[in-house]
Amino acid sequence: MDVLGLDIGGANLKAAHSSGQALSVPFALWKTPALLPDALNRLIQNMPPFGALAVTMTGELCDCFESKRQGVHAILEAVTAIAGQTPIHVWRNDGHFVAASVARKTPLQVASANWLALATFAGRYATRGPALLIDIGSTTTDIVPLLDGCPEPKSRTDHERLDSSELVYTGVRRTPLCALLYNVLGSSYGAAELFATTLDAYLVLGHLPEDAMDTNTADGRPATKTYAEARLARMLCADLDTSTTEERWDLALGAMKAQRLMLSIAINIVAQRLPERPQTILFAGEGEFLIRLALESQKGIPPCRVVSLSRELGPAISRAACAYAVAMLAAEKG
Amino acid sequence: MDVLGLDIGGANLKAAHSSGQALSVPFALWKTPALLPDALNRLIQNMPPFGALAVTMTGELCDCFESKRQGVHAILEAVTAIAGQTPIHVWRNDGHFVAASVARKTPLQVASANWLALATFAGRYATRGPALLIDIGSTTTDIVPLLDGCPEPKSRTDHERLDSSELVYTGVRRTPLCALLYNVLGSSYGAAELFATTLDAYLVLGHLPEDAMDTNTADGRPATKTYAEARLARMLCADLDTSTTEERWDLALGAMKAQRLMLSIAINIVAQRLPERPQTILFAGEGEFLIRLALESQKGIPPCRVVSLSRELGPAISRAACAYAVAMLAAEKG
Repeated sequence: MDVLGLDIGGANLKAAHSSGQALSVPFALWKTPALLPDALNRLIQNMPPFGALAVTMTGELCDCFESKRQGVHAILEAVTAIAGQTPIHVWRNDGHFVAASVARKTPLQVASANWLALATFAGRYATRGPALLIDIGSTTTDIVPLLDGCPEPKSRTDHERLDSSELVYTGVRRTPLCALLYNVLGSSYGAAELFATTLDAYLVLGHLPEDAMDTNTADGRPATKTYAEARLARMLCADLDTSTTEERWDLALGAMKAQRLMLSIAINIVAQRLPERPQTILFAGEGEFLIRLALESQKGIPPCRVVSLSRELGPAISRAACAYAVAMLAAEKG
Repeated sequence: MDVLGLDIGGANLKAAHSSGQALSVPFALWKTPALLPDALNRLIQNMPPFGALAVTMTGELCDCFESKRQGVHAILEAVTAIAGQTPIHVWRNDGHFVAASVARKTPLQVASANWLALATFAGRYATRGPALLIDIGSTTTDIVPLLDGCPEPKSRTDHERLDSSELVYTGVRRTPLCALLYNVLGSSYGAAELFATTLDAYLVLGHLPEDAMDTNTADGRPATKTYAEARLARMLCADLDTSTTEERWDLALGAMKAQRLMLSIAINIVAQRLPERPQTILFAGEGEFLIRLALESQKGIPPCRVVSLSRELGPAISRAACAYAVAMLAAEKG
């Protein structure tokens, strides 16, 4: 059966077809929730035909919704509106699909379960022994322990996963630099404003490519090095005229160092809960470069087999990996 | 001469008349810079007649402007447009007023100089010996050393003032909690999103009053305790259904503790540069409660004379204190 997987986030929509076609588009659900059905329609019109929809989400946390329950209901409603007669399989954090009518009654199990879909799918790349899946996206990082190919998370809701370090709320594009700078600048704190994000740090450092068409940035100006430098300067209450290249570079390096430290601590905490040291590390998400840096400073984890999902699946599917995971899991279930 | 003082910030406009009338209104300059002349017009229509305008600003840092220079020019243009034939005196960070035509040529001296106007005015309350002016506003805190009533700052631009701790980019309403939580939550970092601000922490803790009409909040919902709790819950990737009162209260306390620590360190650094311990501490801004808490944990500063500008000037003028300072300084200059 051909299945279209959808991963509906707060800032991005991702679709992947079980045949292997995938698309990711920015969509500011948190600003314009009413436009979600239109955005989903445009997205699926660019995909091959399908006999079922498989759905996962994280967008229910957006502050356009008063509660997660309300968010899950609104997102399911949008999917139902575009689905017509096509069956909808909604992924839950217990590792099963349910019909939309059941999902509506169990919103807290539907909320932010996409990490488990990816971990369940990725298990086929680490079928023996303990493993870690580390997925660094634009906004958050998931660190999921696996045993003989099956996810063995300590916790299943985002609230609990933050606490267990299986969710680290940090990513390579959208993380506000002010959330990282406290420890970096010492006593001279930067501006506590949403003036710049990790995208700017990694543009300047050359870890992420420039894209003049991408304006999903802190100030809505393009994702180029020059504009990134201007955004970094503003974090210092300065601009390109009143700060030096070195000061901006230091800030970018400082943000990277802070993320590397956060991730390194979290990876270590999660790895400690495995019965023995991980034999395989599965990388996913655009922040693979940062995982590699975080692991370099990781003493608890010896050299082990490393599998890059973006290499296995290709860049397009990799960017929509959770959507692809629900599509494949639903298709395989039949 | 009757003078109207204007303090044009990125999120608030403040006006004060030398006769003692004052107004503060929220205005999102960073979102809608083109509406500034209209907003200023509405503001001055609510004030008594005046023979001159005195202007200071911080809004030039907004990311709607590509540089500070561009921001200063745009703000001066808006003021010139509404001034008609009325003379405009623009305050600079060298402690002098200049005409708008001169100000345009020296934008970096005009940028963010309002703290010096307030310190110059406030000097009359601490005419002898070393003193500190500590002004905690919605977004930032200024710590200005004075000697025999005259400001003696180490640095004069925001970029340098961050470095000298005379500017701490933290305030009691707009500071995103994600900029404070790194040290608070330990290894379980909260959401690195603009989901909640210090206003929410202080509403829940009872340090700031509820105002159901005020929607200048992280999610645009009212500044009430219930909505503040929902915003705090979202920082934990939760909502009111899935987090406890205690968890939210802990978060609020943690944010306050972080601010108290930041301020206490900065106050100590600035106080150390005075020739001797401060004899007077001048309080200003809505965050007076937080200064008192920060000073309690301050070992370097012994009990000394304390002057609350909000008590001296009354709450309305106090909220527009920098606007009042430029009005009075210009009026006294004649």
